[in-house]
Amino acid sequence: MPQYTPPVRDTRFILERVIGLGSHSNLPGFANASPDIVNAVLEEGGKFVAEILFPLNQSGDQQGCTRHDDGSVTTPEGFKAAYAQFVESGWGTLAGPEEFGGQGMPHVVATAFEEYLISANMAFAMYPGLTQGATAALLAKGSDEQKAKYVPNMIAGKWGGTMNLTEPQCGTDLGLIKTKAEPQTDGSYSITGTKIFISSGEHDLTENIIHLVLAKTPGAPDSSKGISLFVVPKFLVKDDGSLGERNAVSCGSIEHKMGIHANSTCVMNYDGATGWLVGEEMKGLAAMFIMMNAARLGVGLQGLGVGETAYQNAVQYAHDRRQGRALTGPKDPEEKADTLFVHPDVRRMLMEAKALTEGLRALCLWGALQVDLSHKAESEEERQLADDLIGLLTPVIKGYGTDKGYDIATNAQQVYGGHGYIAEWGMEQYVRDARIAMIYEGTNGVQAMDLVGRKLARNGGRAVQAFFKLVTDEVAAAKEDEKLADYAAALEKALGQLQAATMWFMANGMQNPNNVGAGAHSYMHLMGIVATGLMWLRMAKAAHTALAEGEGDKAFYEAKLVTARYFADRIMPDAGALRRKIESGSDSIMALDPEMFVAA
Amino acid sequence: MPQYTPPVRDTRFILERVIGLGSHSNLPGFANASPDIVNAVLEEGGKFVAEILFPLNQSGDQQGCTRHDDGSVTTPEGFKAAYAQFVESGWGTLAGPEEFGGQGMPHVVATAFEEYLISANMAFAMYPGLTQGATAALLAKGSDEQKAKYVPNMIAGKWGGTMNLTEPQCGTDLGLIKTKAEPQTDGSYSITGTKIFISSGEHDLTENIIHLVLAKTPGAPDSSKGISLFVVPKFLVKDDGSLGERNAVSCGSIEHKMGIHANSTCVMNYDGATGWLVGEEMKGLAAMFIMMNAARLGVGLQGLGVGETAYQNAVQYAHDRRQGRALTGPKDPEEKADTLFVHPDVRRMLMEAKALTEGLRALCLWGALQVDLSHKAESEEERQLADDLIGLLTPVIKGYGTDKGYDIATNAQQVYGGHGYIAEWGMEQYVRDARIAMIYEGTNGVQAMDLVGRKLARNGGRAVQAFFKLVTDEVAAAKEDEKLADYAAALEKALGQLQAATMWFMANGMQNPNNVGAGAHSYMHLMGIVATGLMWLRMAKAAHTALAEGEGDKAFYEAKLVTARYFADRIMPDAGALRRKIESGSDSIMALDPEMFVAA
Repeated sequence: MPQYTPPVRDTRFILERVIGLGSHSNLPGFANASPDIVNAVLEEGGKFVAEILFPLNQSGDQQGCTRHDDGSVTTPEGFKAAYAQFVESGWGTLAGPEEFGGQGMPHVVATAFEEYLISANMAFAMYPGLTQGATAALLAKGSDEQKAKYVPNMIAGKWGGTMNLTEPQCGTDLGLIKTKAEPQTDGSYSITGTKIFISSGEHDLTENIIHLVLAKTPGAPDSSKGISLFVVPKFLVKDDGSLGERNAVSCGSIEHKMGIHANSTCVMNYDGATGWLVGEEMKGLAAMFIMMNAARLGVGLQGLGVGETAYQNAVQYAHDRRQGRALTGPKDPEEKADTLFVHPDVRRMLMEAKALTEGLRALCLWGALQVDLSHKAESEEERQLADDLIGLLTPVIKGYGTDKGYDIATNAQQVYGGHGYIAEWGMEQYVRDARIAMIYEGTNGVQAMDLVGRKLARNGGRAVQAFFKLVTDEVAAAKEDEKLADYAAALEKALGQLQAATMWFMANGMQNPNNVGAGAHSYMHLMGIVATGLMWLRMAKAAHTALAEGEGDKAFYEAKLVTARYFADRIMPDAGALRRKIESGSDSIMALDPEMFVAA
Repeated sequence: MPQYTPPVRDTRFILERVIGLGSHSNLPGFANASPDIVNAVLEEGGKFVAEILFPLNQSGDQQGCTRHDDGSVTTPEGFKAAYAQFVESGWGTLAGPEEFGGQGMPHVVATAFEEYLISANMAFAMYPGLTQGATAALLAKGSDEQKAKYVPNMIAGKWGGTMNLTEPQCGTDLGLIKTKAEPQTDGSYSITGTKIFISSGEHDLTENIIHLVLAKTPGAPDSSKGISLFVVPKFLVKDDGSLGERNAVSCGSIEHKMGIHANSTCVMNYDGATGWLVGEEMKGLAAMFIMMNAARLGVGLQGLGVGETAYQNAVQYAHDRRQGRALTGPKDPEEKADTLFVHPDVRRMLMEAKALTEGLRALCLWGALQVDLSHKAESEEERQLADDLIGLLTPVIKGYGTDKGYDIATNAQQVYGGHGYIAEWGMEQYVRDARIAMIYEGTNGVQAMDLVGRKLARNGGRAVQAFFKLVTDEVAAAKEDEKLADYAAALEKALGQLQAATMWFMANGMQNPNNVGAGAHSYMHLMGIVATGLMWLRMAKAAHTALAEGEGDKAFYEAKLVTARYFADRIMPDAGALRRKIESGSDSIMALDPEMFVAA
């Protein structure tokens, strides 16, 4: 049956030796993140999710959530008790600001834990995950009164939070929103409309749920410029902080989904519910994007998190299952067959997963550190650089990370052969769960357009130039090191493809923006290869350093070097193909009359 | 809600203008396949599956099969009546030999219908599909008495058939089989053992089920050389053809699977069941491979079939859903938003699906024609060439076809955004159904090893040389034609990558067979690109010819030319990357100690 062990050894390697958490101990909050404390978070947090949440992952998928006739929703057996333990242990408070009851730890440390949480139980992780997104929006845009009223209980996990954007007629195109907000004489608004696909919209885990809702005030423009953000609590909150009357917001139904069955995905009906404006009127989209950017990094982490669990189980199955013989002759002649590990094609799938999960782990943690640095670094230059880099790479981490997470889960299932298709083995759930991450918080096609349509050009291309410089500098330094020169040359080649594709966009995008749109998805993957490739350069360098220092764990570091080579051998070659696809432009994509697509 | 229209126009184009069915009318059985008759089969067969079977696809998935306490299994509501209609209309008899009650049509015509059958309802299609596989083995290896006893009712569809290979401890490695066959004094055998993953193993559609079972006779070698094939009917058949007593074979349970819920995947228990040897003792594997090769082509067709339905629905959704605006300015300014068709990244997913489904349709039909030619062509040279080509390309059609079928279904789901993840829209079912085709009848990794480990080297590489010659000759001819020269040059380049990779295997496989194993999967895809690319060359050529002739359906042929260009622009570039991966060899894949895979 499925198993999961938090990859603490690898996380520590990345935090300590790859992104150098220790070198930032002078920054606010980072003093709370000494190696001992971080290690305790990883060990204890990992133990908690593995022992308490992972055992509920498969049963949660099988049971799903249940909506009752009165509109209430119950989560699967064991979720409520596990959530209470989660709250009591404070695992949701790691990165919350201390003034609202959080532990004030760096975002990068919370991200390391968050990966484990997702790996153990993605559907469970979405309950606190949505709360954190809603909290971030309130902290950024809410009034002091709103912050004081809602945020402490949300950080503590006593209350949940949700994001209400989508409606039946609008997903990506939020300008089409129909939900109305009518101002009332007491300064509140009456909210009326239907929201769909609301993750964690209604459940039995918390005593209150704080909904953040996009709606339009009377006379607002009929576009995304007319959207405002409102806070709509399930139970109104009295001035003394106690719960008042039930608000007119309710769950109309829960969706039947491909996966993440244990998270309640709700249709939410707002029937003149009482809400309050968050931030300025008609500036709702900007406020929502604060949530979205954090959420997109969190979704990228889901690709890694689910991929990691799927990968670990595939490795275990390859140890346990004996089938056929090595091409080079029997490996275990005393047994009736060799283990799956002797077969190169099984190895290919496992090495691909290893190269991608470890590479994405480094990229996600590096990205989380940029979030910290964008707020806390000492100089304006450093803060701006970090903000530029994470702004550029957020769609890459989301889009490339989740596309690859799905591939990893699919390959891990493939290692199991026929057993992978059978529910009780647990592997098909990872594929079904991983699938949603490519869709929500903006489909991966939307991420790709965000990257090429907004992030590339912003501030005259400052961010992408900074990224190119970062990679170029590290490649140049590594080429001087004989041990890293081969790998550095491979990364330099991939970077060259990315730079050429960027130039091609500049030369061909003005005359026809579809040339950029047609290459967007390939470009996102190309940048994903280069960014993950940079992480592998750093990991290889750190491994060589540790080996030279005679640091104990020799086999671990040598495995890093083999895996870096796999990345160069088997993943980087796609860079050239992606560039060629991009440079073919939009002609063959846009030429066909829509009526001619189906040749029936 | 989902819909399906059989792509009769495209099938006819391929049969008539691409593979030239008419030019083979001199061969046995092909006279039965005049254009009028073929057209009637496509139109009427397509109508039947679309009207009777497709409406049961989603409900069948939701209900699944039910095993009762007595071991009987009922299929979902409507299946029994639909199957009765299927039998009555004779849709299962198209390619059956006339002497056993079949219609004696060419395999290629039956394949064209089979695609529609799968598209409409893959789980349903597996019931007659397995029967056909079992029938093929009996026709090839059974005694005259066995053929007379079983085959007519199986071709008629009155009785079902199954293939029993897998056991809990063995899937790919059939040498590990434990099922025993004890000879009895009356010439029969007593079969005892457990078989798993038996598709259509028990159900309520037919009055009898004829199981073909691999088992070992006493003293047989403990390897695949010791396997024999037995026929084990659910009900014994009396000499007068009527049904006798119930045999000691029963369904122990049905599996809970990711998809194809409406097909009963059974654990079958043989408790001293009465069986009869089919063919020679200890030659069972060879007999089973007769079924398997036919079945592998059928599974390749599943990739296409499910992909086609997913694609058609994605196209319809892209017509219906309005979201956002074209990058080049509003397309439908009178509407609040443009349709999804304006977005290049949506187009990319739809064009990819169009290029692959139409390309795979041509490849599957061309492959089916090779099967016909391998039996029926006039000269031994022609028969051998056809046999060589289809032997070589069977693993490619299965492996590449089903990998791509899954990609197409995943992309089609992606076009729907969040709605794609919701069960009622039907798209997630296609992904779950398509997934199994990559696993069963030999995982795609096993297909890849069959290709590089057996098919490439057989007869001194005769088959692959014939394939290279075929592509080279058609490319050379096309380069002379100004309208085809660009496309031909792109195909020539991809062929060059394939030839270089083949040479690399020859040069590096002897010293270390893992070098071949490590590149097998990439090689299978590389050959898939070239083979499908050849089909697109032929389709482009046929389209130009039809346009030059002034044949009526101009838009159809022009769409073919755009799609061929898409294939060259966006799919062929992968050929170079695949070659580079292959040429990186096995070092970075085989170096790691299995204990070092998980870095926890």
